[in-house]
Amino acid sequence: MKLLEDRILSDGVIKEGGIVKVDSFLNHQMDIELINEIGREFYRLFGDERVTKILTVEASGIGIACITAQYFGVPVVFAKKSESKNLDGDVYTALVESYTKGKEYTIRVSKKFLNKDDRVLIIDDFLAKGKAFFGLNEIVKNAGATLCGFGVCIEKGFQEGGRIIRSMGVHIESLAIIELDAYGNIVFNH
Amino acid sequence: MKLLEDRILSDGVIKEGGIVKVDSFLNHQMDIELINEIGREFYRLFGDERVTKILTVEASGIGIACITAQYFGVPVVFAKKSESKNLDGDVYTALVESYTKGKEYTIRVSKKFLNKDDRVLIIDDFLAKGKAFFGLNEIVKNAGATLCGFGVCIEKGFQEGGRIIRSMGVHIESLAIIELDAYGNIVFNH
Repeated sequence: MKLLEDRILSDGVIKEGGIVKVDSFLNHQMDIELINEIGREFYRLFGDERVTKILTVEASGIGIACITAQYFGVPVVFAKKSESKNLDGDVYTALVESYTKGKEYTIRVSKKFLNKDDRVLIIDDFLAKGKAFFGLNEIVKNAGATLCGFGVCIEKGFQEGGRIIRSMGVHIESLAIIELDAYGNIVFNH
Repeated sequence: MKLLEDRILSDGVIKEGGIVKVDSFLNHQMDIELINEIGREFYRLFGDERVTKILTVEASGIGIACITAQYFGVPVVFAKKSESKNLDGDVYTALVESYTKGKEYTIRVSKKFLNKDDRVLIIDDFLAKGKAFFGLNEIVKNAGATLCGFGVCIEKGFQEGGRIIRSMGVHIESLAIIELDAYGNIVFNH
């Protein structure tokens, strides 16, 4: 998606350890016009998948998922990361290792909100090692629901998540796939 | 907002300790059509405030803030709750006590994304004791920005946050103010 690639080139920053900072438009400050175009593009790519629910994980995927859901006309469910008095009863859980935060956490989805009739589109802002996807996919499986796609804003092509997920036969669409050239500069993989 | 009040009556649940569960449509599963109407209503209430930025705190405020921001045509900034490798440099911080989670945490906003020219609308899903608001308001003040409003989906009228914030002269709008009658049933304050 050229609009997103151009924005990454103009405003994105590569930090030590291959961390890509896009916090001025995607995951701290959010450019809502850009995210609206991202939602439109996800609908173009997954609109035929008979999606019944969009699933993401808190926090930075939520805004993108909500705006995307407007095009699909379906609810969003976001997996929660922490134990809360507000999340009782039966939940699906999965363990996720965070690359950027350097720790493991449990994600939870109430069993009320995913079932075997659901066709689930997972949406997230980033794909690196794929840990969040694997956790969400485990929850989709445990619910007996069907995963019909995985939409990612920015994939780090130099990490293994995308390759593994493609090898699983998942319908994955990454709107921008970042590689680093020999000088550590951003180039895009198409 | 009658649409929201009706939805709280049909799908909301009161739990022990005055916790109001609206996780089937607002803060775990999200009914995007309803949230779109909430965004439209916030624009009707705050559209004259010359808002330049919508501020919220992760996680459950983000989706509501993003959809609301579409009406205002401004970016969203969400305060982050945890230390992350992705959030470096100069940040504004505030300490927030969570009623539902029973602990304190630090919220952070990068100094790049709020400045003295900003007119900030704070959006959140819930108002109880007002702790999240006070933390966000402290960050707005530290940035030298102007707070021009606070939009809340559901206020617990039986807790003190709304009263304190109104006494500060803040332009606050709660779309549904819940009281509990003598039997612990939900009634609305208008």
